[in-house]
Amino acid sequence: MRVLVVGAGGVGAAVAAVAKRRDVFERIVFADVDAGRAQAVVDREGDPRFAAVALDASDAGQIADLVRAERVDAILNAVDPRFNPPIFAAAFDAGCTYLDMAMTLSNAETGEKLGDAQFAQEEQWRERGLLALVGIGVEPGLSDVFARYAADELFAEIDLVGIRDGADLVVDGYDFAPTFSIWTTIEECLNPPVIWERERGWFTTEPFSEPETFHFPEGIGPVECVNVEHEEVLLIPRWVDCRRVDFKYGLGEEFIEVLRTLHKLGLDSTKPVRVRGVEVAPRDVVAAALPDPATLGDKMRGKTCAGTFVTGTGKDGKPRATYLYHVLDNEHSMREWGHQAVVLQTALNPVVALELIASGVWSGVGVLGPEAFPPRPFLELLADYGAPHGIDER
Amino acid sequence: MRVLVVGAGGVGAAVAAVAKRRDVFERIVFADVDAGRAQAVVDREGDPRFAAVALDASDAGQIADLVRAERVDAILNAVDPRFNPPIFAAAFDAGCTYLDMAMTLSNAETGEKLGDAQFAQEEQWRERGLLALVGIGVEPGLSDVFARYAADELFAEIDLVGIRDGADLVVDGYDFAPTFSIWTTIEECLNPPVIWERERGWFTTEPFSEPETFHFPEGIGPVECVNVEHEEVLLIPRWVDCRRVDFKYGLGEEFIEVLRTLHKLGLDSTKPVRVRGVEVAPRDVVAAALPDPATLGDKMRGKTCAGTFVTGTGKDGKPRATYLYHVLDNEHSMREWGHQAVVLQTALNPVVALELIASGVWSGVGVLGPEAFPPRPFLELLADYGAPHGIDER
Repeated sequence: MRVLVVGAGGVGAAVAAVAKRRDVFERIVFADVDAGRAQAVVDREGDPRFAAVALDASDAGQIADLVRAERVDAILNAVDPRFNPPIFAAAFDAGCTYLDMAMTLSNAETGEKLGDAQFAQEEQWRERGLLALVGIGVEPGLSDVFARYAADELFAEIDLVGIRDGADLVVDGYDFAPTFSIWTTIEECLNPPVIWERERGWFTTEPFSEPETFHFPEGIGPVECVNVEHEEVLLIPRWVDCRRVDFKYGLGEEFIEVLRTLHKLGLDSTKPVRVRGVEVAPRDVVAAALPDPATLGDKMRGKTCAGTFVTGTGKDGKPRATYLYHVLDNEHSMREWGHQAVVLQTALNPVVALELIASGVWSGVGVLGPEAFPPRPFLELLADYGAPHGIDER
Repeated sequence: MRVLVVGAGGVGAAVAAVAKRRDVFERIVFADVDAGRAQAVVDREGDPRFAAVALDASDAGQIADLVRAERVDAILNAVDPRFNPPIFAAAFDAGCTYLDMAMTLSNAETGEKLGDAQFAQEEQWRERGLLALVGIGVEPGLSDVFARYAADELFAEIDLVGIRDGADLVVDGYDFAPTFSIWTTIEECLNPPVIWERERGWFTTEPFSEPETFHFPEGIGPVECVNVEHEEVLLIPRWVDCRRVDFKYGLGEEFIEVLRTLHKLGLDSTKPVRVRGVEVAPRDVVAAALPDPATLGDKMRGKTCAGTFVTGTGKDGKPRATYLYHVLDNEHSMREWGHQAVVLQTALNPVVALELIASGVWSGVGVLGPEAFPPRPFLELLADYGAPHGIDER
């Protein structure tokens, strides 16, 4: 399989470290607006199948040309979701498979939801026999696979599919250092959280609503989680029969206070302000002032957990509550792959999916979420990668 | 008297509104890096004695040339304190009186304190028979006059001179809208606060240290105040005999949390970061993202209070605790002068001082604080301006 990875940031670099061990890949081209960053990824892994190129992710024509020149089978979109439209269009235009880890952005003013822009093109993709597998990181991604697995194998009837994300990661030497893209974190945490219920359909609430203390496994323990806008809520109800889907993120009190303050001061805004003769978006300045999460691996300690809490009636007819999860310890992740746990956990899943698509185990046409595919081969292959999931009965 | 006001921001514009009513001024030139802003100040007041020019406040040569061309008697420095050195140098070079409302900045790394750079040139100013009256806004400024007045007329012996600043101002329609320059507020609130004690001399503590609830007069009520770096602590011990001088600012819990968060995220920094190809200082972006305090007057409600709390032994030999203060109601300030209370309160005092200097009531040579001059004429003239002070026995 020949792959184009667009974006050589934290997740793109971790994709290289995971894919390097897999024979299924014939060639992977890492493309970034900063050619040096793409080259550094290739140099680091030293795999002759890897190549680096400079690419403007906002230029669909340039991306499609590269797909044709490199005879690419699949594009993995690993940049900020604001670049999804041109990359999505380029894959369609050049006729290759498309994967991303975050869907097109919502717009509170127009009522457009996450991924709406992509699902609006579902029919064209189906008609051309092309596959767009959207939201195939860890969350969304593995969390959606868990939902489908629960529906197929564990439950007769599902009430709640509640995605719950928490960690006990600390970064030594920093007052405040997010372990994932702050740009994306601000986007998803300050937008109105979306919830789906069978009777109401999709609806939104206030940021940080419905706080709950969720107990995470493998020693992480209780973390305060709040509603956050996330792709699973848009994906899961399309393929999994249930009463309610929500997403709660274990931000913790301090992070919530930081996000509230950024919002209060208008520093979450992506609209440029004029500062001493130049124009900058405050949110970009926040990201630039903070350390790059991809560089913090050796200063991080602790574990990160992504998972899907499912309640309802088990196959045996009895009430059941099960948390399907994936924990990655940063120390293990650094030693095994050389990348910090949060980006590595995200990167594992699209590589697994690419391998399943290459082998034909996963196949389909149209714009599909991870829950549209058989979950068991995915979970088995993930374990084969040395990163098995866990199941916690509650 | 011929005056050059450098800086046509909020305070500069309010100086125009106050000075317009006083006959002592023969001519006032308002200078700003943005010529349009200076012209707007002049146009607004419609006083034929006023003129506007473009001026780069960082260019001492350009300022000195303007002083000579305009035969200026006194420069009033009304820009950010980072421009103090060139303006101070220009006044010395051109041989005119210098006034500012904030002294040269401290440097925690070198141990340099507020105003040290100015006091280091005291002898040269004295030798040339020139006067630099530093820190003559409301705080520092009127607060220092209060300290001298307490020493001269109310107390036989002073223990504490504690400057206390509080307000009950709210700005309608904004989640967060500082009523004074956020740039300066960050500078003074996040630097280590300075305290003076007779036995220890000057020493610093942690930001937001020694919180106390101070009861402000005229209906403002209790406000949580914390230690903040401020000029009075550097000025008062040079001329007023006492045991201790400190400055506490009624920031309130919310503002403190905002400042803590800005610091935690590195957004208080004045060191430029690179953002999508341009360089900007995060602190400048914070200022640009927030509304301009000078434009908020008609959305503000409430009162602002500046004052000096003095404890010790009264002239009658009995223990005494007195708060000398100045309250300005925003509604009154807007109606009377057309400017919001915080900038107007600041602007009143240098105009009073200029008038006392013009008439020879205040005279001196060297680098002097407001407490080096007789306080009674100042307080009387301030009352004549329609803004009398108050005295609250505790």
